[in-house]
Amino acid sequence: MPQVSERGERMPGSPIRRLVPLANKAIERGVKVYRLNIGQPDVPTPPEALEALRNIDRKVLEYSPSEGLLSLRKKLREYYRRFKINVDVDDIIVTTGGSEAVLFAFMACLDPGDEIIVPEPAYANYMAFAISAGAKIVTVPSNIDNGFELPPVEEFEKLITPRTKGILICNPNNPTGYLYTMKEMLQIRDMVLKYDLFLFSDEVYREFCYTGAPYISAFHLPGIEENVVLIDSVSKRYNECGIRIGALITKHKELKKNVMKFCQARLSPPLLGQLVAEASIDTSPEYMLATYNEYVERRKFMIDQINQIPGCYTPIPMGAFYTVVRLPVDDADKFCRWCLEEFEYEGQTIFMAPASGFYTTPGMGKNEVRMAYVLEKEELAKALLVLRKALEAYNAGQSTSSDAVDR
Amino acid sequence: MPQVSERGERMPGSPIRRLVPLANKAIERGVKVYRLNIGQPDVPTPPEALEALRNIDRKVLEYSPSEGLLSLRKKLREYYRRFKINVDVDDIIVTTGGSEAVLFAFMACLDPGDEIIVPEPAYANYMAFAISAGAKIVTVPSNIDNGFELPPVEEFEKLITPRTKGILICNPNNPTGYLYTMKEMLQIRDMVLKYDLFLFSDEVYREFCYTGAPYISAFHLPGIEENVVLIDSVSKRYNECGIRIGALITKHKELKKNVMKFCQARLSPPLLGQLVAEASIDTSPEYMLATYNEYVERRKFMIDQINQIPGCYTPIPMGAFYTVVRLPVDDADKFCRWCLEEFEYEGQTIFMAPASGFYTTPGMGKNEVRMAYVLEKEELAKALLVLRKALEAYNAGQSTSSDAVDR
Repeated sequence: MPQVSERGERMPGSPIRRLVPLANKAIERGVKVYRLNIGQPDVPTPPEALEALRNIDRKVLEYSPSEGLLSLRKKLREYYRRFKINVDVDDIIVTTGGSEAVLFAFMACLDPGDEIIVPEPAYANYMAFAISAGAKIVTVPSNIDNGFELPPVEEFEKLITPRTKGILICNPNNPTGYLYTMKEMLQIRDMVLKYDLFLFSDEVYREFCYTGAPYISAFHLPGIEENVVLIDSVSKRYNECGIRIGALITKHKELKKNVMKFCQARLSPPLLGQLVAEASIDTSPEYMLATYNEYVERRKFMIDQINQIPGCYTPIPMGAFYTVVRLPVDDADKFCRWCLEEFEYEGQTIFMAPASGFYTTPGMGKNEVRMAYVLEKEELAKALLVLRKALEAYNAGQSTSSDAVDR
Repeated sequence: MPQVSERGERMPGSPIRRLVPLANKAIERGVKVYRLNIGQPDVPTPPEALEALRNIDRKVLEYSPSEGLLSLRKKLREYYRRFKINVDVDDIIVTTGGSEAVLFAFMACLDPGDEIIVPEPAYANYMAFAISAGAKIVTVPSNIDNGFELPPVEEFEKLITPRTKGILICNPNNPTGYLYTMKEMLQIRDMVLKYDLFLFSDEVYREFCYTGAPYISAFHLPGIEENVVLIDSVSKRYNECGIRIGALITKHKELKKNVMKFCQARLSPPLLGQLVAEASIDTSPEYMLATYNEYVERRKFMIDQINQIPGCYTPIPMGAFYTVVRLPVDDADKFCRWCLEEFEYEGQTIFMAPASGFYTTPGMGKNEVRMAYVLEKEELAKALLVLRKALEAYNAGQSTSSDAVDR
């Protein structure tokens, strides 16, 4: 039997998805599982989008252009202009989700052995895409105790080598919910200029900023217009994660040309998703505001509740819909598995993403989890009660506790 | 400005799509362009599939499982059984088109520097995906004069090195239309066994075999069940290229595990496409037969017509819906460009894919093009008349001909 690749062996399992089989088994046992592991909101997709889907009037579901439908790219230009991101239609390449935008950005910018610097904790799949491209992610730890603000510039500079090709940020941040300040963004810009780097900026959560502080796009920073590679997705803002439509935006001519070669190789992004995405951009301000207000409430509720559980701590996330929580456990990975495999409280359990998968520095995030506030308040309330009970049971000697079910 | 990757520079432009900008310009000039360059059939998508689309009754267009919807995987198992391909649901991983299946197969089987052997001409994007994975495609030329049959085993064996990890075939073949015989398939099997290789088998055109000769799946070959990586797609058989649904099928446990890591990194295949694909598998036999008969007619018409054009030759394709044509020109790439940029006949021109992009051996395919018989007979007739006129004009001194328009 032939051997699989080392690359495949080195690929990390997704911290968000690798426990799914355990969750499925819990469900099979009849346990209700609260899914706080994944950024899959329960908010309905906009009616405009569903209506567009029902009214698709095509006889042949054919390939679209490799760079995406022109009509969608025009709509996206209009959308970005609302956020003072001045890009042309030609700068916008439609991708199969934000995921493909990250993959193609890495493939077209990085050669095997090239390095990019990323503040950690970071969205775990960046690591996976870097491994796919043979590139190396070098991480600068940020700290839960100061709310995961940008680490000092010196910490970045220490890591710069001749192979450093870029910096990657996610803003607002997944998993921390941090929103970079203008001061921090200018520090990043200065580094990008000084070392002539790419700035990969994942801004898929731009609609979700809760503190009144401004959202600053990488494209707002003067002087690095050709260094910026913007990663975007319609998944989160219109609650349509399944349609797999994202975008890679760049003004770097050579890069555009090369990204297009990767686009042509996979022929085209999904046609149906593009039609839905296009209609979604016309979603009413009322829908967007209602979604926003829903998250504002969930966020307040969730953070307040978590910080009342003995031994738990989470800083207030300023954006997105995640938060990183420090738990009073020895090993959050073990605890998350235990919740799915061995614990139940009144027939319920909780599914969280162990934060260790969002760090590359060994040992970091060992007692942290990422939680997504993507469920309704009533569900969140039940989930957090289950968490409280689970922590009590786990720390009282795990499966000897009366709340736990031996298996 | 930071430098793009060498990998991106090395990526080939798609021979199928790289001339699209020239075609678009011709259209802008008011020229009617017959698109024989791309496997985008004009046959309508099955009514069952379009009906399923109109009836999607979901409030949230959410992520699907990374391996695809269970209901779709079950339907696919049923579908494969009709072709005596006995695979389990767990062996089937749904991908974003056959393209992603190829990419993930390479990523999970091949490390940088690993080699696979492929008979050429071959679907150009294999090269692109190999470059993405840092792997090397080594080609064995097949020959238009014997209809592109499998080159002798010795030619493969000459190329085997310690880095050889697999053989890739496309059967029925894109671009040649060749269908491998049982004798050839057994020769491939013996090599796979002897050298312990992966056999990547792209069988997306299995529904289109025209000569009565049997379709032989790699999974029909005894003794190499765990070496086979089957690449599939619903695009061609149900005329729904735009939905981007394919599959990677393997019984190799370690490989399955590793492919799943790449699947998790990109979260999920397109939800809407999966729903359409699932409904498509229930397409009526009448639809499938009508489509088949349509290609039978187009194939006969197209091949007969081409072989009547002075200096043109194409062997009879046994499957798929492409054929490779030898043209009486110095350089088919130049000729294809010229057709789009400089030529028109009664306001029409023809768009073909230069075959050089399907070969890696320099100089091969220089006077060949790939044509897809994906248009109705009436359109094909007009396209081939344009081709005849274009060849006359080109060889009469190119733009000095009265048929050509100087630009």
